[in-house]
Amino acid sequence: MLKVKDIGEFALIEHIAKIVEHADERVILTIGDDTAVVKPTDLDYILLTTDLLVEDVHFTLDTISPWQLGYKSIAVNLSDIAAMGGLPNYGVISLALNPKTNVSTVEDLYRGMADVSRKYDLRIVGGDVTKSDKMIINVAIVGEVEEENLCRRSDAQVEDIIMVTGELGASAAGLRIILNPGLRSKVKDADRLEKAHFLPEPRIREGRILAKLGIHALEDISDGLASEIKHICEASMVGARINLSKVPIARGVEKVAELTGERAIDIALSGGEDYGLVFTAPIEIQKEIEKSFAGIGIKVTAIGEILDKSQGITVVDWSGNVKPLEISGYTHF
Amino acid sequence: MLKVKDIGEFALIEHIAKIVEHADERVILTIGDDTAVVKPTDLDYILLTTDLLVEDVHFTLDTISPWQLGYKSIAVNLSDIAAMGGLPNYGVISLALNPKTNVSTVEDLYRGMADVSRKYDLRIVGGDVTKSDKMIINVAIVGEVEEENLCRRSDAQVEDIIMVTGELGASAAGLRIILNPGLRSKVKDADRLEKAHFLPEPRIREGRILAKLGIHALEDISDGLASEIKHICEASMVGARINLSKVPIARGVEKVAELTGERAIDIALSGGEDYGLVFTAPIEIQKEIEKSFAGIGIKVTAIGEILDKSQGITVVDWSGNVKPLEISGYTHF
Repeated sequence: MLKVKDIGEFALIEHIAKIVEHADERVILTIGDDTAVVKPTDLDYILLTTDLLVEDVHFTLDTISPWQLGYKSIAVNLSDIAAMGGLPNYGVISLALNPKTNVSTVEDLYRGMADVSRKYDLRIVGGDVTKSDKMIINVAIVGEVEEENLCRRSDAQVEDIIMVTGELGASAAGLRIILNPGLRSKVKDADRLEKAHFLPEPRIREGRILAKLGIHALEDISDGLASEIKHICEASMVGARINLSKVPIARGVEKVAELTGERAIDIALSGGEDYGLVFTAPIEIQKEIEKSFAGIGIKVTAIGEILDKSQGITVVDWSGNVKPLEISGYTHF
Repeated sequence: MLKVKDIGEFALIEHIAKIVEHADERVILTIGDDTAVVKPTDLDYILLTTDLLVEDVHFTLDTISPWQLGYKSIAVNLSDIAAMGGLPNYGVISLALNPKTNVSTVEDLYRGMADVSRKYDLRIVGGDVTKSDKMIINVAIVGEVEEENLCRRSDAQVEDIIMVTGELGASAAGLRIILNPGLRSKVKDADRLEKAHFLPEPRIREGRILAKLGIHALEDISDGLASEIKHICEASMVGARINLSKVPIARGVEKVAELTGERAIDIALSGGEDYGLVFTAPIEIQKEIEKSFAGIGIKVTAIGEILDKSQGITVVDWSGNVKPLEISGYTHF
């Protein structure tokens, strides 16, 4: 197998440039000069986000394929753009590689990046390639949004309803199967759950619809629903109450929970990387939101309401008891 | 000493946010939401660049201080913006850290980043913090430039003169002293040479002056003068001839070369990371360039000329002999 060290930096960059090429009148100069040169964004504000993934910290090549890794590394950044109500524009990728990496591995990685980028109209216009023992991927993305459509984490208002798109827990349940392959044969939905973990879809379209409908706070569910609700409440200086019986749990999560001795609702609340959207909205537009989402065939569910800060952040369980929401989303260090 | 793992991710991000804060009417939302939100750029084009630095590949904390590392990591990206004739605007920083890293080390790193950013009007508006064994720093920068001032690598024209700003070889000579501290006491200019290596200055102002004067191709000297000239010639499909006796060699390089058994001119031609500018320009504006640079107290020197591609890339040595230019700049893998 041809290795990166056999072809060298410049030939590798040429391979990559061909794979991610996105001929477009917005791109003036792409890979090959000191910087990429692109047309300015059209809308009121630029959105800027970046994300660093390190082998054996965030992923291991034993379980995820290079194509999936490329797809996911871009998708999670696009999800941050969706969480502002915005649109993606341009991306730059840094990659550090062990020189013994197969060239085909690198090509598959960038094919995954190129595929998700084309799907969501992101132009990969530059980057950096260097060496290291472990693979390192950094993605930085420029997006844009209109002033009136910008959805801040701090925009939640007392009496807003809290809603989520899609269903929860699939990615976390998928991860449990990936880490414990013995579970796979026992879970009918294993493939779908693993796919939810490896290939999250950024909810750009949904974010745009919600922003234009006039919702308030918006987040993507990257760290787990409970954590995201806490983020919204802290930033907006409000409280919240979640009705556990309303939380939509993905098919198969119940079965995985049964096998791992957990509760499905805990996987749904604390499991990260679902990359659906959680948002708050005035109750007056709930029907309109539901109608819009029915129109695109995406589930949207009201799961609770925003309360005064003094009420704290609580859940109502199946017996009607009110308890504090436990936060167990992912944190580093 | 307080460690990163003692204070956790969120407290660390709060520390960082305070250090890099750059209150500014262009910054709508900074660290703390899914993305940073900033005002759009004003000029015709956006410039986008990114750079990944990995501990023990690109730096070792045994020789560079955290403050210097922060300064340099931003400076080298700003240098890429300078090399397009542009102005910097916004930056996002990804950092991976060993959880045992001292909090004070991280603070010093970001102080270095903040200091160079304020100096060159770059706003650090977001980022990502995560863990890894080795320290990893990724910088991504958004800049801007007018269409008429954009200086491409491919803009060199036959009969252009080739000029460089500043003097060459200081950074590479400094690196030799850093890696072989026994040399230090023997080199009077050791401090200045080491500083050239640790704290390069991005030539934003010089790049802007040159772009507005109507120069052609422009590069920053990151990979060594010989490599940069080769890049320009390949991209512009031209040849070049460099007059070795004209290449301005920094004070102290000669002494280091004597001690390491090298030739000073080789250190000047192949030593990377000088971060001066090399450019080509119509001979008609040479005087104007020299006058402008005299006005700001920066040296600028004509070192050769652009020739037809058929002439190849050559040097004229002190005896008047013409020989091929040897390329030995840094490449990865």
